[in-house]
Amino acid sequence: MRQVYLDYAATTPVKEEVLKEMIPFFSENFGNPSSLYTKGSASKEAIMIARRKVSSLIGADENELFFTSSGTEADDWAIIGIADALKSKGNHIITTGIEHHAVLHSCEYLAKNGYEITFLPVDKEGRVRAEDLENAITDKTILVSIMYVNNEVGTIQDIKELCRITKSKNVVFHTDAVQALGNVKINVKELGVDLMSISGHKIYGPKGIGALYIKRGTKISDFMHGGAQENKKRAGTENLTGIVGFGKAAELAELNSENHITKVTELRNYFIDQVFEKIDDVFLNGSREFRHPGNANITFEFIEGEAMLLYLDLLGISVSTGSACSSASLTPSHVLTCLGVPVEKIHGSLRFTIGDPTTKEDIDYVIEKLVEVVAKLRAISSVSKAKGW
Amino acid sequence: MRQVYLDYAATTPVKEEVLKEMIPFFSENFGNPSSLYTKGSASKEAIMIARRKVSSLIGADENELFFTSSGTEADDWAIIGIADALKSKGNHIITTGIEHHAVLHSCEYLAKNGYEITFLPVDKEGRVRAEDLENAITDKTILVSIMYVNNEVGTIQDIKELCRITKSKNVVFHTDAVQALGNVKINVKELGVDLMSISGHKIYGPKGIGALYIKRGTKISDFMHGGAQENKKRAGTENLTGIVGFGKAAELAELNSENHITKVTELRNYFIDQVFEKIDDVFLNGSREFRHPGNANITFEFIEGEAMLLYLDLLGISVSTGSACSSASLTPSHVLTCLGVPVEKIHGSLRFTIGDPTTKEDIDYVIEKLVEVVAKLRAISSVSKAKGW
Repeated sequence: MRQVYLDYAATTPVKEEVLKEMIPFFSENFGNPSSLYTKGSASKEAIMIARRKVSSLIGADENELFFTSSGTEADDWAIIGIADALKSKGNHIITTGIEHHAVLHSCEYLAKNGYEITFLPVDKEGRVRAEDLENAITDKTILVSIMYVNNEVGTIQDIKELCRITKSKNVVFHTDAVQALGNVKINVKELGVDLMSISGHKIYGPKGIGALYIKRGTKISDFMHGGAQENKKRAGTENLTGIVGFGKAAELAELNSENHITKVTELRNYFIDQVFEKIDDVFLNGSREFRHPGNANITFEFIEGEAMLLYLDLLGISVSTGSACSSASLTPSHVLTCLGVPVEKIHGSLRFTIGDPTTKEDIDYVIEKLVEVVAKLRAISSVSKAKGW
Repeated sequence: MRQVYLDYAATTPVKEEVLKEMIPFFSENFGNPSSLYTKGSASKEAIMIARRKVSSLIGADENELFFTSSGTEADDWAIIGIADALKSKGNHIITTGIEHHAVLHSCEYLAKNGYEITFLPVDKEGRVRAEDLENAITDKTILVSIMYVNNEVGTIQDIKELCRITKSKNVVFHTDAVQALGNVKINVKELGVDLMSISGHKIYGPKGIGALYIKRGTKISDFMHGGAQENKKRAGTENLTGIVGFGKAAELAELNSENHITKVTELRNYFIDQVFEKIDDVFLNGSREFRHPGNANITFEFIEGEAMLLYLDLLGISVSTGSACSSASLTPSHVLTCLGVPVEKIHGSLRFTIGDPTTKEDIDYVIEKLVEVVAKLRAISSVSKAKGW
């Protein structure tokens, strides 16, 4: 049976070239980068090269990039670290209702510890309105955290414009760019952000490695306390192979950037068009214009997304309801709720995310099976309705 | 030229069997363990198996083990998480002066945030006296954190006896067992600890993965906020390959435990005996009886450890001054300082740590070269002294 993975927003396979680059650092060049002998220097140099590659992908200087264990750690560090460093200045933080749980739960933690959090609304496409941000800023505001590209519906924010507002009010700006990396051309200097979270396993690098961009001069407290790694800002023996893999993945992403975006966008548009042509009562959630190139979040009316997901899985197709992080939970997606999608439509929503390895044949297979599965489930659903179930 | 790595306490190479076990999870079975489809379940199952193996190595139940990104994260979580969870009960924490920086710096962070920290002294062998701990506990004490095996001098504490004291006073006990894992037989239930930090890359597993044992019923706040991973206690997409590798390394460590300890102890004793026989004016730091099987921390009088380290490196030998984490710093080892070693002797100290791959031929080569290097450096040093430099 054909296997089609359409959940590249949840995680990606490590590319062959990436794994190849990592292999020597497991058992041969395994030295601790903090040690002084040659075996350690080789590791240190490998980390330096990887840092250069990842920095380059987002237009940062090398010494502004700090490796973490994940996008989640980068988000936690940015939010809790800024809150702590600037607590004498104020206790107000602004974010949105559609953020990743790493941001939302860090903010909730701070809310329990004397901070005030404003959750900005979004429009029905999932975009933050600049005037809402402008109006929310007070003289106690120390941080604004707004994600670059949403993980569920793929909506892209106008980060440059939002940064312009915070800059004029002297407020620190953080963006979770985990979903943006590799899918949107990023330049931290042009955007004007102070902090940016990114992750390796969304761009065909390994899991367990992320990074936080911290603009030079930004005052931030440490999150991971211990040894003097990462220029004394993030403790813990470096995840050498993870860093090397992230570096190679970033290099490939930068090289392939335009091809990747063009290819994935075309396949995604083809997929959406086919779904709309062949299946009735479907809706595209999010924005058509400001959208992650590989994302299609679609509501299929009158059926449960979870049932579809399991059916499709039996047919070799991997897709997701909402974000992978919360897919094991039954609460309706907080993102779709914020977009104003009615709860019954939320339950009929599926997220398809297309990646580098996806082919047109994969999409055709998924469309064929989707048509069958939707028909089957709607038949059951209408029978249920007729019987008054 | 022969290459001899004697810094296994800093980090270890990933064993062939471990890497072999990890490989399929990079690019084939790469699914996000939090997703609901089959590809995700395979990852979830691999994590379950690894958790069982790591738990088994320390005698814990599977649901008491939480994967982290490192031993440092486990230490930070234990200390900051307990401090936060029990802040209504008290603000006093007891630790020692010879802890890893992950513990010391977490305590320093807490000290800046209203907590009081007592640093217990140790005897000249590096052992904590039970009566010192007993006398330090007040009705405000919420946590005692004492490392199992010291990373620099290898001293093993009587954790069972220390736990008996904290238990009688209803105080939570955490131990950093990063250096103990695989080198001392560990059973958390027999020891009576409430929390234990461990790490993968010290037992021939990959870097970037650690774990915190949390005894069932222990009240602890989250450290990494975000998704619902690790039974909702530690957010962030699981480091799938890291976890699988840690699991395999733990399985091998448990299987080889006795052989490993016997072999390494014999080589270590042979090494120490040879050094004492062939080189004058040397001292063994730490305890002879309560000692990490592979550790030899030796002071060579009248010379600089750093100079020796660099000379040995040129001869293909990797050793360390103090801990790898602080080896790039010039401040004298805080551990040797606590043991009462005079500062000039601290500067002449080297840490040799023996591991599984070490052979008697390796040791003979190191002894031969040590004799030469010490003679050479002492000659320069005596010339310098004679000239009044």
